[in-house]
Amino acid sequence: MKKQFASIAIIGKYMDPNALQQMQHELAQLVQHLSQKDIQVWVEENTAHHASLVGVNTTTLSEIGTQVDLVVVMGGDGTMLSVARSLYENQLPKPVPLVGINRGRLGFLTDLRTEDMLVEIDKILAGDFQAESRMLLEASVYRAGVQVLNGVALNDVVIKSALRLMEMEVEINGQFVSKQRADGLILSSPTGTTAYALSAGGPILHPDLNAISLVPISPHTLSNRPITVPSECVCDVTVMQADDAQLSLDGQYQQTLNVGDQVRVIRAEQDILLLHPKGYCYFDMLRNKLNWG
Amino acid sequence: MKKQFASIAIIGKYMDPNALQQMQHELAQLVQHLSQKDIQVWVEENTAHHASLVGVNTTTLSEIGTQVDLVVVMGGDGTMLSVARSLYENQLPKPVPLVGINRGRLGFLTDLRTEDMLVEIDKILAGDFQAESRMLLEASVYRAGVQVLNGVALNDVVIKSALRLMEMEVEINGQFVSKQRADGLILSSPTGTTAYALSAGGPILHPDLNAISLVPISPHTLSNRPITVPSECVCDVTVMQADDAQLSLDGQYQQTLNVGDQVRVIRAEQDILLLHPKGYCYFDMLRNKLNWG
Amino acid sequence: MKKQFASIAIIGKYMDPNALQQMQHELAQLVQHLSQKDIQVWVEENTAHHASLVGVNTTTLSEIGTQVDLVVVMGGDGTMLSVARSLYENQLPKPVPLVGINRGRLGFLTDLRTEDMLVEIDKILAGDFQAESRMLLEASVYRAGVQVLNGVALNDVVIKSALRLMEMEVEINGQFVSKQRADGLILSSPTGTTAYALSAGGPILHPDLNAISLVPISPHTLSNRPITVPSECVCDVTVMQADDAQLSLDGQYQQTLNVGDQVRVIRAEQDILLLHPKGYCYFDMLRNKLNWG
Amino acid sequence: MKKQFASIAIIGKYMDPNALQQMQHELAQLVQHLSQKDIQVWVEENTAHHASLVGVNTTTLSEIGTQVDLVVVMGGDGTMLSVARSLYENQLPKPVPLVGINRGRLGFLTDLRTEDMLVEIDKILAGDFQAESRMLLEASVYRAGVQVLNGVALNDVVIKSALRLMEMEVEINGQFVSKQRADGLILSSPTGTTAYALSAGGPILHPDLNAISLVPISPHTLSNRPITVPSECVCDVTVMQADDAQLSLDGQYQQTLNVGDQVRVIRAEQDILLLHPKGYCYFDMLRNKLNWG
Repeated sequence: MKKQFASIAIIGKYMDPNALQQMQHELAQLVQHLSQKDIQVWVEENTAHHASLVGVNTTTLSEIGTQVDLVVVMGGDGTMLSVARSLYENQLPKPVPLVGINRGRLGFLTDLRTEDMLVEIDKILAGDFQAESRMLLEASVYRAGVQVLNGVALNDVVIKSALRLMEMEVEINGQFVSKQRADGLILSSPTGTTAYALSAGGPILHPDLNAISLVPISPHTLSNRPITVPSECVCDVTVMQADDAQLSLDGQYQQTLNVGDQVRVIRAEQDILLLHPKGYCYFDMLRNKLNWG
Repeated sequence: MKKQFASIAIIGKYMDPNALQQMQHELAQLVQHLSQKDIQVWVEENTAHHASLVGVNTTTLSEIGTQVDLVVVMGGDGTMLSVARSLYENQLPKPVPLVGINRGRLGFLTDLRTEDMLVEIDKILAGDFQAESRMLLEASVYRAGVQVLNGVALNDVVIKSALRLMEMEVEINGQFVSKQRADGLILSSPTGTTAYALSAGGPILHPDLNAISLVPISPHTLSNRPITVPSECVCDVTVMQADDAQLSLDGQYQQTLNVGDQVRVIRAEQDILLLHPKGYCYFDMLRNKLNWG
Repeated sequence: MKKQFASIAIIGKYMDPNALQQMQHELAQLVQHLSQKDIQVWVEENTAHHASLVGVNTTTLSEIGTQVDLVVVMGGDGTMLSVARSLYENQLPKPVPLVGINRGRLGFLTDLRTEDMLVEIDKILAGDFQAESRMLLEASVYRAGVQVLNGVALNDVVIKSALRLMEMEVEINGQFVSKQRADGLILSSPTGTTAYALSAGGPILHPDLNAISLVPISPHTLSNRPITVPSECVCDVTVMQADDAQLSLDGQYQQTLNVGDQVRVIRAEQDILLLHPKGYCYFDMLRNKLNWG
Repeated sequence: MKKQFASIAIIGKYMDPNALQQMQHELAQLVQHLSQKDIQVWVEENTAHHASLVGVNTTTLSEIGTQVDLVVVMGGDGTMLSVARSLYENQLPKPVPLVGINRGRLGFLTDLRTEDMLVEIDKILAGDFQAESRMLLEASVYRAGVQVLNGVALNDVVIKSALRLMEMEVEINGQFVSKQRADGLILSSPTGTTAYALSAGGPILHPDLNAISLVPISPHTLSNRPITVPSECVCDVTVMQADDAQLSLDGQYQQTLNVGDQVRVIRAEQDILLLHPKGYCYFDMLRNKLNWG
């Protein structure tokens, strides 16, 4: 019988050499554990380098996922976000599943602990897991009719003034919604509603909802409350006034926005696929992360 | 060719004799206008009585919709809510469309003005309208395993302490979500998110979203924020502590809740159907009602 | 030299026989400890009874404080609130200081732990404490010009509809402020801003501020935000519409309010005096209670 | 008898040549009107230049107020803020009163209309006015122990990250309050609580309150709620982590903040003095500006 996960990629907190050094032991353990099971293991190149993993097959972030059946991320939610976006940009015919291992406190997206990762990974290899689709957002910026940026986000597309108060016009499916004077606007996927959007006063959306949440940041008009629309909607935001507006995807700065720029946000064509341990419950995670009760 | 709307029911603000007297002229006009077009007109009995409409066929609220192709409501959002629930309780094989006429300022649900109602109604009769489905919520109360209440709501199911601070346990699809200490909890349909739920800090949900929004009222734990789940979810709320908890549907008191009572809220089996004038736009209505810009 | 605290009253969670039984040991310890120091000890009568403290001088809640130099409360914040109001109602020429001992987690107002209460009490007896004034609110209800209620609150005066949506008119120093449609209105002292007012979205006011905070509960108009005024202000709230409005002081129901009733809230003439252990810091308490960081 | 206002300075929207041109007529009218009353009139130089006011005595913004008994501002709230800060920086022995004239909709600070300004000004000249003190905030930035910035603000001192999420440590009177992870922090005077602080979720403080409001912007920890302290407090904010933090006063960018920088905010030594028409009521203004009722 063919293994479900015959080939696995491993990636650590690839931007942070110090962190990689600190998780060197766990990474080596994981590589060895999987290799012994006759699984073909690929390690992202920065991860291999800074964690001193020698004699391993390496791959790049931009190619991660192209030839594997599973990607294991060792890091926090931030690393998960980056890898998820990279996987999408690989333009694979179908999503490669993703699993996250966290050191210390679990994240919103990373639900295995390093302490018991080998046991947990074995369960996943044995098919003992829950798969969960998460939608992505695709953002494009048009300037004088020409597309000048295109990218995806798992959490959120944020349009924001560096100082304060910009003016935007929001349209949904070509229908005028509002002229907003605010510090900015967050367009969030359900996954992103427990991140920045929550701090800005937005609602929590269950990840199974097919929805986009528009959350104004410190809006001038107090009745400009967060609004959630179906994920099939085309959300257009035109910058009407701003000295220093910026667009970011999952908290990563992308580019400056000029007056007249139009940002279009839609649901991305393909979802990503997260694997959780069996028995995973979204609400347990929420209660734990938000200190309920 | 068979008329689409061969038989129409008319209902005014049926609980309020004074209001009915005041709208007597418009009601009479409407009855006459429709009758002249060879449409069979039924008038709700209180409406006929207090608006002194003589020589008309009358019907009861509980039977309204059973034999007509369209129900026209003359009143505010409150009347629309009651009629919508009544129509549902008629248990018709398919929803009878509903159109709302408002005196003065338009409502969230009533979008024809009495001033130009005849012209607007004619357009609707000519097929020149937009139909929109709106989901309802169904609430049941179980006491010691026995169902003691069952009803529907277009806006919201509200569980609330008359004085303050009750304790509830919330489960969704059988999964424990949270123990809430709060003044109460609003379970809102998308339609209801611009009503009480908005005052309590909840998000606005577009009516095309298939979702239920759970909005705590003055929660003791500040991180207990509104959460929105897919409308297929089964939401169970168990009363853990309360001296004086109450359940209401669309703002209408239904019954006292005891400690141990379980309130189950699900999406009702059938939606209702609203007819809007062509060119109706949800966001225009929102902008107008919430004084945006 | 005359002792600063020659006579001390002790009161437990006087409304709750079970709790009193459970704290019997600590209460007995405290009585004995103080008696040995040649301090005249008075015990509130319910406390003495249910905690089986025999051979002690007893006093009533309504007389507590009349003949002592210090009142020690063993209970939670709720007991402190009641005792504080009782002390005020004693109409003593100057405030009798109050100290709170809590079992388990400390409260907003009770900052000695039973574990080390004897050591901490000794420090206070030795003059090693910080005294802190806390303002009270005085509420009066006028019906057709006649005063029908008068009372004080340490936390808050709450005007609230049992079901929902009442209409009130608010005046400050005789100036019209707003017509509010809301579930209710909280008038809070600085002390009360970390209680119910916080749940309803109000700001935290440092107890040294001489201020009254008006916090609407689920206001219909979204721009009806909490407003804080100097404590010399006379705040008048007139009930304009309500089926079932109620007034409560520190969460204790006082009476039903009718349409036309006028509630006047002012700062009470005398503050109460809390004694904290030396080194007490309001912000430490806040950080601890609100789980900051 | 000596006139109360023998010498008056006039200043328009001095940064905006277009606006000055448009208000040329009103400015000329005002100059002429006052000159005819034998009042010595000074016009701010940019105002005189762009509004083509010839044959008038001119003065600079930085000297405005040094030799007059009253400053009349024609512009919006923004101009008032700038002039108020300038007046303070003049370091006059006592505050020069300030009156604001607005074209179109009245502002929070400007309460005369151009339409009836001559009548209203005459009333003020006749002593028919209400004077109101407004406290200012003074902000200093210390870098490695050296003060690198000092300035005042009438509305607010804002510490904010250009992108997002900075980390700050807040101390009040040397007592640790909290470690904040947020987009930023607003330290607002009562006057500023209806400006940016309100958009960020802060409370409204009546201008007679001697208080400083600390309002976190999109705080990571949901229980990090706005807190208001007496105006005698020394508020220290230390930047712990930030790539791009900035300090602004009344919305005017002042300087970049580095990690380790300490921002100290206190109440400024002198208040400013606003003159309102007799019968002015703060709550009327609030109701009007916030669209209550």
